[in-house]
Amino acid sequence: MRGAKEPLRIEEFPEPALQNGEILISTIYSEICGTDVHLQHGRLSGVPYPIIPGHVSVGSVERIGGTVRDVYGATISVGDIVTFLDVHNTCNHCWYCLVAKASTKCPERKVYGITHSSKEGLLGGWSEKIVLRADVKTIRLPKEVTPLRFIAAGCAMPTALHAAERAAVRIGETVVVQGAGPVGLCAGILAKRAGAQRVFIVDKSETRLAMAQRFGLEAIVATDASHPDSHVTTILHATHGRGADAVIEATGVPAAVKEGIAMTRDGGRYIIVGHYTDTGEVAINPHWDINRKHLDIRGTWGCDFSHFHYMIEVLKQPEAVPGFDASWEHLVSHVYSLDDIATGLRDVELGRVVKAVISPNGYQD
Amino acid sequence: MRGAKEPLRIEEFPEPALQNGEILISTIYSEICGTDVHLQHGRLSGVPYPIIPGHVSVGSVERIGGTVRDVYGATISVGDIVTFLDVHNTCNHCWYCLVAKASTKCPERKVYGITHSSKEGLLGGWSEKIVLRADVKTIRLPKEVTPLRFIAAGCAMPTALHAAERAAVRIGETVVVQGAGPVGLCAGILAKRAGAQRVFIVDKSETRLAMAQRFGLEAIVATDASHPDSHVTTILHATHGRGADAVIEATGVPAAVKEGIAMTRDGGRYIIVGHYTDTGEVAINPHWDINRKHLDIRGTWGCDFSHFHYMIEVLKQPEAVPGFDASWEHLVSHVYSLDDIATGLRDVELGRVVKAVISPNGYQD
Amino acid sequence: MRGAKEPLRIEEFPEPALQNGEILISTIYSEICGTDVHLQHGRLSGVPYPIIPGHVSVGSVERIGGTVRDVYGATISVGDIVTFLDVHNTCNHCWYCLVAKASTKCPERKVYGITHSSKEGLLGGWSEKIVLRADVKTIRLPKEVTPLRFIAAGCAMPTALHAAERAAVRIGETVVVQGAGPVGLCAGILAKRAGAQRVFIVDKSETRLAMAQRFGLEAIVATDASHPDSHVTTILHATHGRGADAVIEATGVPAAVKEGIAMTRDGGRYIIVGHYTDTGEVAINPHWDINRKHLDIRGTWGCDFSHFHYMIEVLKQPEAVPGFDASWEHLVSHVYSLDDIATGLRDVELGRVVKAVISPNGYQD
Amino acid sequence: MRGAKEPLRIEEFPEPALQNGEILISTIYSEICGTDVHLQHGRLSGVPYPIIPGHVSVGSVERIGGTVRDVYGATISVGDIVTFLDVHNTCNHCWYCLVAKASTKCPERKVYGITHSSKEGLLGGWSEKIVLRADVKTIRLPKEVTPLRFIAAGCAMPTALHAAERAAVRIGETVVVQGAGPVGLCAGILAKRAGAQRVFIVDKSETRLAMAQRFGLEAIVATDASHPDSHVTTILHATHGRGADAVIEATGVPAAVKEGIAMTRDGGRYIIVGHYTDTGEVAINPHWDINRKHLDIRGTWGCDFSHFHYMIEVLKQPEAVPGFDASWEHLVSHVYSLDDIATGLRDVELGRVVKAVISPNGYQD
Repeated sequence: MRGAKEPLRIEEFPEPALQNGEILISTIYSEICGTDVHLQHGRLSGVPYPIIPGHVSVGSVERIGGTVRDVYGATISVGDIVTFLDVHNTCNHCWYCLVAKASTKCPERKVYGITHSSKEGLLGGWSEKIVLRADVKTIRLPKEVTPLRFIAAGCAMPTALHAAERAAVRIGETVVVQGAGPVGLCAGILAKRAGAQRVFIVDKSETRLAMAQRFGLEAIVATDASHPDSHVTTILHATHGRGADAVIEATGVPAAVKEGIAMTRDGGRYIIVGHYTDTGEVAINPHWDINRKHLDIRGTWGCDFSHFHYMIEVLKQPEAVPGFDASWEHLVSHVYSLDDIATGLRDVELGRVVKAVISPNGYQD
Repeated sequence: MRGAKEPLRIEEFPEPALQNGEILISTIYSEICGTDVHLQHGRLSGVPYPIIPGHVSVGSVERIGGTVRDVYGATISVGDIVTFLDVHNTCNHCWYCLVAKASTKCPERKVYGITHSSKEGLLGGWSEKIVLRADVKTIRLPKEVTPLRFIAAGCAMPTALHAAERAAVRIGETVVVQGAGPVGLCAGILAKRAGAQRVFIVDKSETRLAMAQRFGLEAIVATDASHPDSHVTTILHATHGRGADAVIEATGVPAAVKEGIAMTRDGGRYIIVGHYTDTGEVAINPHWDINRKHLDIRGTWGCDFSHFHYMIEVLKQPEAVPGFDASWEHLVSHVYSLDDIATGLRDVELGRVVKAVISPNGYQD
Repeated sequence: MRGAKEPLRIEEFPEPALQNGEILISTIYSEICGTDVHLQHGRLSGVPYPIIPGHVSVGSVERIGGTVRDVYGATISVGDIVTFLDVHNTCNHCWYCLVAKASTKCPERKVYGITHSSKEGLLGGWSEKIVLRADVKTIRLPKEVTPLRFIAAGCAMPTALHAAERAAVRIGETVVVQGAGPVGLCAGILAKRAGAQRVFIVDKSETRLAMAQRFGLEAIVATDASHPDSHVTTILHATHGRGADAVIEATGVPAAVKEGIAMTRDGGRYIIVGHYTDTGEVAINPHWDINRKHLDIRGTWGCDFSHFHYMIEVLKQPEAVPGFDASWEHLVSHVYSLDDIATGLRDVELGRVVKAVISPNGYQD
Repeated sequence: MRGAKEPLRIEEFPEPALQNGEILISTIYSEICGTDVHLQHGRLSGVPYPIIPGHVSVGSVERIGGTVRDVYGATISVGDIVTFLDVHNTCNHCWYCLVAKASTKCPERKVYGITHSSKEGLLGGWSEKIVLRADVKTIRLPKEVTPLRFIAAGCAMPTALHAAERAAVRIGETVVVQGAGPVGLCAGILAKRAGAQRVFIVDKSETRLAMAQRFGLEAIVATDASHPDSHVTTILHATHGRGADAVIEATGVPAAVKEGIAMTRDGGRYIIVGHYTDTGEVAINPHWDINRKHLDIRGTWGCDFSHFHYMIEVLKQPEAVPGFDASWEHLVSHVYSLDDIATGLRDVELGRVVKAVISPNGYQD
């Protein structure tokens, strides 16, 4: 990706030399996600174009710089199927890392596929090979977790895990998720797994809602919220007029925040996780929407390694929601080749796919 | 108070008969608070005018209907100086009381001086005598706590305690309070007592800020927030550019919410406690203001008996903030008689006083 | 039950008159639980023998004293299938109720089938009819929840819900439950529902472990903990030598506490919920077992209405653990008649049954 | 310190060469603490004797290896007065660091003065000079905090801050601290600062209790706990028979755990922070002591940088407890020279001093 709004271009790089502690992997899968669309539109600030996009990826180990151990202490070998936390370089030496314990706000934090220029090397997943720097947290995929299942969950899953953690779901509660994209679907699935009795998911897309239902989520078609029989009314009706115990926003649409608050019960939790780029403002009434509601609103930025760890644990089980047949793999709509990447990016932009995966080496699961 | 925007009128009521468990007290002090101004302006919905205003009060026991015990099990006697939680009739039988454990949202909840018509009896503090219903939670004031000190803290204090609890202050943190009215001053005092190292308080009134300084709070004059050298800039400068760990809103002004968020650090807590009536909307950017900030926004509605209990504990100590001479009593600007009540109400409305107290029987501390 | 160690006796009572707000139900099912064995052995202090045992029960409404509403505001009618929280009379007026918010420690708290003498009336479930006092929290069973399913979960379930809440299970974690009696099985089931990836359950009884496996729990046979290949070793081996994130004790055996701590990871949570009677002491090393482990130990006493509420929500779903066929009803080993009650009590004492149910009116589901 | 139970010996080391990122400081003060007594008795396992004791220290910068920044981003210069977190080398790469977020349990963790052999260099404070390795978290002392005040708080303070954090004190609560050594005194002081209304401290030493009173703590003489008028009875009497809301153990005596539980109210918190070495077992009754009490027991191991950060914030204020004259410096009983170190160690062992400080270069504040 040469720059904002410039066409994508396939380039050749020399075979990289490895520093001690580094790993070179052959990419099996990477993702095409909504952030990549934002990257091409130039909606993220401070991106050092040209970049190799693709933040969450999985590959097989080709070469290793010395002896490298994963987070659990096991030595990594050539041929291992590994993944890694795309966020790295958090310094563990600054106020955010050490005092606030909010490593997702560390100013040194780097992200594969987003904050590295391609001049720095193969630091993005839309590439046949990726260099894992020495500080990268690497995990060998357990044999129960196939590369396709892993990438199906992809970057949406640890973000959704963080959101689910912030939602603090209690066994038997009712949860609403706004938006049935990858983050919203994962958040809904995880709310079920965290013990929610009923999980509603609101979206305009019939395709996405049909997918959601396969995971045991109760689909609600989003309509004009001002109508007396809108999705807001439906949720209130389903919750004895009180609203849901927790509502998770995964739309990126400012107006959804106002609607989401209206669907949350007094004393409930409203989690905002879908606003990764600036899409404008929304008018909030502090009296009715927050103070009188005794509401908790919780922004959720990024994820840390703990979410990545638990993601792998959860993926060991084939069914996404126990009791429902749909597996994680069903989230993948299409696997693109490097040559098809522009098509893939457009499909994501137009919402034609739930999850778009790229396989730069033509891997088939 | 005959109705919204009608002049106040002094009326005579017959000496009330007491049911079993009821107490009649002779009013020593009651408050004239901002809510009473709202009541006269008709800004609260569902108020059953005519009413006897005055929610938090203190008095001496005149008559008792049978044997009545306080919350700690002690028998109440004629002559005892008592106060009571103005909020009563929470049912302990509904979903909010029992499942959400949010008694401040119980639909049966009643409040002295606000939700009782004067036709129901002497259920407000702007009266020579008050009837404490059998379900009212009554406390005998410990001898260390004078009636004047109690009423100085008044209704602001349990509300501020609830807000301070929600702010979850950690020893050594920095806190900002927006607004130096009674709730804001109490919140600032309590943030200090909860271990905050620095507590800034922002207001336009020099008088109120001078008062705040006597309690060890660092006074910041509120200016136009859009100016490069506004109070927002001052706070950022004082916090290494990060913002405060917790910010407590006690202004009731919608625009303050936007400014308050700007003064809170990434991953911090923003507490909204000043919006007890609808004063309009504010535009919020979900990306910058909440999601990317990883912010917690916590609305705080009302208080429960636990706040009232701890309020009395705190008041046993003469100094409001240990190490500073100012005592709670300094919060009282003026004690009004029943005849002066209209003046008192206007003084509160115009912000001429920090705390206005009424003494219907002409009591002098 | 005439007194400790006295034979049970069937007695006739006059048809009770109802006070306003009271309900008379015809008992469908009640339980014979471990507490009833303790009651007969005289191991609980302050029991006002003679009593009618049976704390958690379900029945159909026969008569109503006036108009009675359930917690959700619905009017109760003759013929409704209802249950009720056996704990009642919590005062909402004492320090424990109002300040500590620990209603399970309220000194006024009463429990059906335990703290009421039969001289006070039909206040226990081993009776053809039960009087629900006016302050009792009553729930109409939703149509999805049959009386048998409800009683299968019984008193163990809200207790286990409280324990699961205290365990604060995070999605993907590993949990160990000690003891596969009704509380242990329910705790294991709920740990799964709260998101635990693996739940181990330790017991000596092959029958109980076989039952546990039907609910998706991983069965571990309890052996002498001092042996090098004991269940403690098995758990450590399964958790990379670290121990489980949370361990829930449901045995009532003091030695289990020492073993349970050994199975918990550093910084983990150890929940004690099985010690409802005094069965002696255990030696703990504060350095190794608590301080150096950075351990949280959490006692869990009783339950409140919120647990009862969420229990009913959870029971709306037929499968106890989604993805496993076993239903709640499978927990019921045998339904006894009033005449068989002594047999039932002995079966419970000897651990011959998982769950023993009594049907005083010979109801068949 | 050559080894367990061997006499201390003063040795000369060559002037060290510095790696990039390292700092050489001239020691102003270091501590002689209870852990040093344990080190000499050989009660800690895995200590790589010979060692240079002294974990928490303060000094002036003599030489710097390249450019070094402190945690807040400021460049460190020769002549700066600095301190550093004695715990270092936590890897930020293992399960404990990344998933459990319990860096105090990281297996790579090292501690100055304890886990470094003197063969590795000047890595302990009982030395004229100390080498700060590149990964050490260094803080320049703010000008308000003198070296003496810093060392007066010393290693006890961040440990006590961690304990106070775990105690989760609420404004107005009652706290008991067991043991008036440096950790106990700091815990008591911090409980006051966190908002406790009354803080009792229990010890046998009249000297230590007299010191405690200067900090506003209520002194209770420890007596035989089995006597009807013991310190346990005194606490129960002072808390309406309920016990304190939180009790912090800082004695290292197993029997204190049983007494401490007896002094905690039902539903309260019992914090164990004094058991840094194995001093034996104590018999606990799981029914009465934990389950029926609905008790939280919280072990507290070590501290992390956040506690060190807030410690410095707190020390900016001269008074330890606002409203009481005693300053942190009063905790220092005696400053020893290198030649007196054996005497200092014995004074600590015999409890003759509150806090013993060593000044290897003969610095006078």
